[in-house]
Amino acid sequence: MRNFDQFTITQAVLERVANTPDARTRQISEALVRHLHDFIREVRPTQAEWEQGIAFLTATGHMCTGTRQEFILLSDTLGVSMLVDAINHDHQQAVTESTVLGPFYVEGPPEQPCGSDISGDLPGEPMFASGTVRTADGTPLANAIVDVWHSDEDGYYDVQHEGEGLVARARFRTDEAGHFHFWSIKPAAYPIPHDGPVGKMLQAQGRHPWRPAHVHFMIEAPGYEKLVTHVFVAGDAYLDSDAVFGVKDSLICDFAVHPAGAAPDGRVVDRPWCELTYDFRLNPVSNAASRAA
Amino acid sequence: MRNFDQFTITQAVLERVANTPDARTRQISEALVRHLHDFIREVRPTQAEWEQGIAFLTATGHMCTGTRQEFILLSDTLGVSMLVDAINHDHQQAVTESTVLGPFYVEGPPEQPCGSDISGDLPGEPMFASGTVRTADGTPLANAIVDVWHSDEDGYYDVQHEGEGLVARARFRTDEAGHFHFWSIKPAAYPIPHDGPVGKMLQAQGRHPWRPAHVHFMIEAPGYEKLVTHVFVAGDAYLDSDAVFGVKDSLICDFAVHPAGAAPDGRVVDRPWCELTYDFRLNPVSNAASRAA
Ligand SMILES: [Cu+2]
Ligand SMILES: [Fe+3]
Ligand SMILES: [Fe+3]
Repeated sequence: MRNFDQFTITQAVLERVANTPDARTRQISEALVRHLHDFIREVRPTQAEWEQGIAFLTATGHMCTGTRQEFILLSDTLGVSMLVDAINHDHQQAVTESTVLGPFYVEGPPEQPCGSDISGDLPGEPMFASGTVRTADGTPLANAIVDVWHSDEDGYYDVQHEGEGLVARARFRTDEAGHFHFWSIKPAAYPIPHDGPVGKMLQAQGRHPWRPAHVHFMIEAPGYEKLVTHVFVAGDAYLDSDAVFGVKDSLICDFAVHPAGAAPDGRVVDRPWCELTYDFRLNPVSNAASRAA
Repeated sequence: MRNFDQFTITQAVLERVANTPDARTRQISEALVRHLHDFIREVRPTQAEWEQGIAFLTATGHMCTGTRQEFILLSDTLGVSMLVDAINHDHQQAVTESTVLGPFYVEGPPEQPCGSDISGDLPGEPMFASGTVRTADGTPLANAIVDVWHSDEDGYYDVQHEGEGLVARARFRTDEAGHFHFWSIKPAAYPIPHDGPVGKMLQAQGRHPWRPAHVHFMIEAPGYEKLVTHVFVAGDAYLDSDAVFGVKDSLICDFAVHPAGAAPDGRVVDRPWCELTYDFRLNPVSNAASRAA
């Protein structure tokens, strides 16, 4: 195998990866080579543009740390994350829609009793969040694990503040009625971190980096597919131009504002507070498994 | 723009990047989104596979340092580097064929007078290298800049040895007859650095990481397109399975072995020595420019 031109090189690489022992790895390798080569043949990069591409990927890699995942931001902003999500959640049933995980999840958040206030000392509008976790037919699920995380009123996550502990982030467990509730503050719309290569890409593409305000939920229960989703704040200015294409109408909640006074859990609040309430419905694993087959 | 499924998401992202002010950036962005989404729709990655992809790219970025360019290795081993090279060197004329730059070039190598021995203290079979730089019609080109670099007899480049200075690497200038010559040692076949993510990929694909022995040349002269190429050693075991698809028959040289004694430049060598000789022909810039148009 020698003397390749811009057409025979693709066949040569495909022949080389045809020896991949694992069938799935072979399938992915072959598809990657075909689409990557087609992309290159379509845009015909100059040598200098190829170098820019290498430099972009390198800078993106160098931006990644324990608390910053620039390749996830790249995947998110190119719509790849939501595409992968859509492929894996093409549900036939009435279960809660999923959306991107995003780059700010922290593994194993601290478990808190229901009713806790997870806002720490953060200023902001009090938020009473409650929900029920159910099966597709509406049966409540007890002992489901509910991870939540959201931004502060300036649009930052705890992990974006150097040296700050975990705040606006916790794990709850549903009770016998499938119910959980907690207090925090209302999150704000925020720009995804845009001081790196992905920010430069967005700028070059004439795009803003903003996401509409939301609370992240990740819910697990034995026998059900893990649900990764958000609940978005109705009326947000960015619902129609989310930088990562994650908004679904079924995930929007009013966050209705209530006057100062007693909240549903008996707490008396000295100023107006808003209410997030959502009923989550999980997909049985059998559905997930049959879909993957 | 909300509620995307696995088909409408692509249109949504294309609409978003349609605002890219620079036409070329817009063209590249749109092609990237289309091919990337087609790739994802074809292979239907699970969420776990997507995470593996993110982890692979991140590890590849983290492997990149001042002397290690893992994304170039990835481009090389996926045939992308040679594809870009082919697209940009689709010559109609009889000029020297190009091949990959590779990851071991160092900017601005030390200029040496013709006839220098650039091998430093490296052991190995002495190599007398000489060549002429010409235009496509055979006219010699004086004052052309000739950068050379190659591996040692164990297949390593200087930059792969921590703390070693530059050896087996230099810059020469052609004389009035377009000629240059120098002494070094014969390079060896070598595996591309495969202790990183790209090495793992090659292993998963059942591929070896070897490249046939070669000397790199990069030649520049005003009015001519920069030539990036290799001269390969005839008979090498890896000529037909170069890990980066870079071999062209026109770039193979005999490296004929001569007995101990006087070499063409008058030097007397106390053991057998081999000879690399090659006539390089450069492409006029006007050709390169019209091709790019
Ligand atoms: Cu494609
Ligand atoms: Fe978020
Ligand atoms: Fe090399």
